[in-house]
Amino acid sequence: MPSKARPHSIVTLTTDFGLADHFVGVMKGVILGICPDARIVDITHECRPFDITGAAFTIAQAYRYFPPMTVHVVVVDPGVGTKRRPILVEAAGQFFVGPDNGVFDAILSRDSHHVRSISNRKYFLEPVSQTFHGRDIFAPVAAHLAKGVTPGQIGKPIHDYLLPQSAKPERRKDGWTGTVLSVDRFGNIVTNFLASDLSKGALEITVGQRRVTRLASNYEQFGPGELFAIIGSSGHIEISARQASAAKLLGVMPGASVKLKVNW
Amino acid sequence: MPSKARPHSIVTLTTDFGLADHFVGVMKGVILGICPDARIVDITHECRPFDITGAAFTIAQAYRYFPPMTVHVVVVDPGVGTKRRPILVEAAGQFFVGPDNGVFDAILSRDSHHVRSISNRKYFLEPVSQTFHGRDIFAPVAAHLAKGVTPGQIGKPIHDYLLPQSAKPERRKDGWTGTVLSVDRFGNIVTNFLASDLSKGALEITVGQRRVTRLASNYEQFGPGELFAIIGSSGHIEISARQASAAKLLGVMPGASVKLKVNW
Amino acid sequence: MPSKARPHSIVTLTTDFGLADHFVGVMKGVILGICPDARIVDITHECRPFDITGAAFTIAQAYRYFPPMTVHVVVVDPGVGTKRRPILVEAAGQFFVGPDNGVFDAILSRDSHHVRSISNRKYFLEPVSQTFHGRDIFAPVAAHLAKGVTPGQIGKPIHDYLLPQSAKPERRKDGWTGTVLSVDRFGNIVTNFLASDLSKGALEITVGQRRVTRLASNYEQFGPGELFAIIGSSGHIEISARQASAAKLLGVMPGASVKLKVNW
Repeated sequence: MPSKARPHSIVTLTTDFGLADHFVGVMKGVILGICPDARIVDITHECRPFDITGAAFTIAQAYRYFPPMTVHVVVVDPGVGTKRRPILVEAAGQFFVGPDNGVFDAILSRDSHHVRSISNRKYFLEPVSQTFHGRDIFAPVAAHLAKGVTPGQIGKPIHDYLLPQSAKPERRKDGWTGTVLSVDRFGNIVTNFLASDLSKGALEITVGQRRVTRLASNYEQFGPGELFAIIGSSGHIEISARQASAAKLLGVMPGASVKLKVNW
Repeated sequence: MPSKARPHSIVTLTTDFGLADHFVGVMKGVILGICPDARIVDITHECRPFDITGAAFTIAQAYRYFPPMTVHVVVVDPGVGTKRRPILVEAAGQFFVGPDNGVFDAILSRDSHHVRSISNRKYFLEPVSQTFHGRDIFAPVAAHLAKGVTPGQIGKPIHDYLLPQSAKPERRKDGWTGTVLSVDRFGNIVTNFLASDLSKGALEITVGQRRVTRLASNYEQFGPGELFAIIGSSGHIEISARQASAAKLLGVMPGASVKLKVNW
Repeated sequence: MPSKARPHSIVTLTTDFGLADHFVGVMKGVILGICPDARIVDITHECRPFDITGAAFTIAQAYRYFPPMTVHVVVVDPGVGTKRRPILVEAAGQFFVGPDNGVFDAILSRDSHHVRSISNRKYFLEPVSQTFHGRDIFAPVAAHLAKGVTPGQIGKPIHDYLLPQSAKPERRKDGWTGTVLSVDRFGNIVTNFLASDLSKGALEITVGQRRVTRLASNYEQFGPGELFAIIGSSGHIEISARQASAAKLLGVMPGASVKLKVNW
């Protein structure tokens, strides 16, 4: 056992690589070759190809449930091989490793974070390919961090990383306008409204062509096919239907506009 | 390392969460945060949404291949947030954690089992959401069990849990009538007839519109597209076709009726 | 901890079992029951059913990124239960366990390798089924290897294993003719031409009805929808398009013919 290894080092993976090819297995081989004690956890490899926003949402939902010092690797990286920089973000007592392209927007929106350019080739897998930095840069750097290498050894602080885009609803004359962040496997529509945006007043959400005015406390409260709002597990307001896909019923995709009126 | 931790504690996961969202990764983060030594094994996350019967079949096929003291978590839970109880079942030297909705029918059909209501909020992740008990109740309780917490600390014995539904074939005038338990990835049709239901006599199985009278000893014994029965790896009689989907050929889904005649 | 266990024993799995059934979970239960310290890594379970060539490509791409002594299990095995032999291959300081049906072609094409017939039933899970040797033979044998059992204990050397089929391009009058080895999740077309087949001369690749004459150094070098060649992460020449599926644009599947002309 390497003497510097932090016990129980966790490395999570979030990619758009899918599970049919060898890509994910190869990244795990690289990680275990460097840090045999690493505990590797898949968040998902089913991000839609090139969907940076979706990956940013996924890691934002997941990281807070992991222990301190977890290393999160996010590789949705259409710009692999271009000038976009690989970065290491320290925030919330954890590490985030991936391209500087927006995948860490939620982490960079936090009060406290430090960003470094990943530049020390000592921790890369050489020769670095043009097309698979998940294998050649992100996996080995994450494994070295899991093994006890310090951020300062990985690269220098930078301040000109991409600024995160706001994911907050906007105040309009007739209420608030937000967006659909995600549609989950069950067809639940996750909006960027938070539970705290709901006062005690009456609720009225407009999404697609439909108005939703009922707030449920569980998925079986209303009849089959009826739409309702519910406070999702992430604290966001979601639109759902009982054992049916609200997204299909409404024809809604991530990025769609949502209006919220609270009458109080 | 927590002093009470059982070495090599295994926690298995069977859900309908799919692999595209953050749900499964989050459950693993919660488990590893509580029991860093846990070995987490995915049975499947591709149960059809809300398919309790399918989940019950899957865990029934899998649990016996795991070592004693394994903790099996099953979350197919359309009633999350309603009055349905979270339960802990002890059977076959293992632990089963999930909702009291039928997912453990095969385990509860065994001679010896003990059921407890999961009620000690000390082992929950607070605040408990309305919609994600996999994260807030089942994962943390499983992790605490893996770490050495005893069933008695989790909750009190109950006797009014849902009674398991029989999955056995029924005797009819003209033979036995059973059902299709499952269709696997290869299109093999898994029936609820067991190898032991086959005497030495001639076999005749009717499924869909077709009669199958041949019993194969391997998948390549008969020609392409020809249907045959075979003793599957679970001990159930299956209907198969060589490198083709018997289920597609016959238009058969789980729940379909199957007739068996043995002429001896 | 078993005294003979090699620390950090890695067992990888490559199958066509998919992730919806209990098959993969059961194999992992068997492995952990025998070798509790094994680190199990999924390469993929999404090989197309019965696609031996695809599985051979996948493990060929993956194994070199794993540490010495890794045990690779490959189960794409339409002939399960027939006379085809289970084999153990030692090559590149690693172990390969699976059927003698071509899945290890890339490994057997290496200079140095030793092949054994897996025959010692002491390391099988009895009773051995007719249909699931992944569970009954390959998983337990791999676990015993991971635990320190020697190849000599598993079975005797054989020399009449299936000879690997060449995957190399052929010289023709008007250039070289190769094939499409794989189409990955992003629609990149992986050919069996290697980077080293490209001299400094001009490039001309014909695939489907189209000629490709541009070599990119990253995926964003050319405009949307434009086809280009690129040296892929495996060292093979690939045909790609920016944020689009080259395979769909060209209507190309694995096995398709590819022509390469280098004018120098």
